[in-house]
Amino acid sequence: MFENSAAIRGQKRTPGVQRRGQERRRAILDAAEALLAEQGYEAATLKAIGERAGIPTASMYHYFPDRHQVEAELLRRHMTELDTRITATLEKPEAQTLREAVDVMIDILWDYYRAHRSCTELWFTGRHQMLVELVRSFDDVQAERLWRHLVNRGLASADTPRLAVQLSFEVGNRLFDVAFRRTPQGDGATIDEARRLITAYLESYS
Amino acid sequence: MFENSAAIRGQKRTPGVQRRGQERRRAILDAAEALLAEQGYEAATLKAIGERAGIPTASMYHYFPDRHQVEAELLRRHMTELDTRITATLEKPEAQTLREAVDVMIDILWDYYRAHRSCTELWFTGRHQMLVELVRSFDDVQAERLWRHLVNRGLASADTPRLAVQLSFEVGNRLFDVAFRRTPQGDGATIDEARRLITAYLESYS
Repeated sequence: MFENSAAIRGQKRTPGVQRRGQERRRAILDAAEALLAEQGYEAATLKAIGERAGIPTASMYHYFPDRHQVEAELLRRHMTELDTRITATLEKPEAQTLREAVDVMIDILWDYYRAHRSCTELWFTGRHQMLVELVRSFDDVQAERLWRHLVNRGLASADTPRLAVQLSFEVGNRLFDVAFRRTPQGDGATIDEARRLITAYLESYS
Repeated sequence: MFENSAAIRGQKRTPGVQRRGQERRRAILDAAEALLAEQGYEAATLKAIGERAGIPTASMYHYFPDRHQVEAELLRRHMTELDTRITATLEKPEAQTLREAVDVMIDILWDYYRAHRSCTELWFTGRHQMLVELVRSFDDVQAERLWRHLVNRGLASADTPRLAVQLSFEVGNRLFDVAFRRTPQGDGATIDEARRLITAYLESYS
């Protein structure tokens, strides 16, 4: 009896059905990405995302229980791409000074945010706790990597506490937030101050 | 006729009625302050504040249309007190170095936040746009004052852009937020990093 109902559940999950489910999830994420990029955070309701993806609102709940789940999944997709770019850069390092290393990291992030407004909206405008925690855990991982990278390459003093690099990500986030509040492409003067501030701070340990 | 109804309206606003209105508003703010301090941001609903103040929920709307108006008014009260403390300190300056001036400012804020959890809850946990904007305008005013103070007293170079002091408040806010997330009294290690970071940043202009 139990085996039977398990078999029935199994039957429903044929490869074709699974693939269609994945396609629909991807269509929903793409629609959310387009809406966030074109109209900003407030406009991207679950209903509006469904309409854009051509999926009835009632069916949307089958894939995502609420808009925050869509946002979190989309933000994770952006983070995977960002992580790939950071990895590629850290594996072929060109920076010869701490300032250059800070510049490289800031440029990766700035380029990405500028080219992906949906990411910027989720990173800075989205106030939902799930998004805040995703950003925090992403930053913690990157801070640990960057700390190792800077110390191993002799660009930062071995005395530099991990906390200092973690806090550099915290303040970097805040300054990017300010920069994108000032202009849609991120205010260059503010970002230049971020470069100076983080470099001066980390240099204070050398 | 018009004069008559004006007179009637006038009659309703006797000094006694006005005073009672002010007393009730103050009682509501005091209740909100106590609730925020004891139970945190989420718990301080308009209903809970009314119960604490001994005012029926229906009457609450007569004084404040929603909880955010209470929060904004209470935050303004805290800001007035903080501004008084900052003014007193800037009028009798003792700091002889940039680092000491940064320490003084951080200590005023840290002491105040520690002693007034309701302020900290509104400043950092409250995500409502009205609170965010109050904090921003408070910081802008204080940054302008501090910039003048540092430059006039020769503690910062005259080349220091106002933007640098404004951004110091932005990152200071973020680091206080991190510090109070870490421990209820504000993590001392994080606050020490804030002192170092802001000093190193502003010194980079001298």
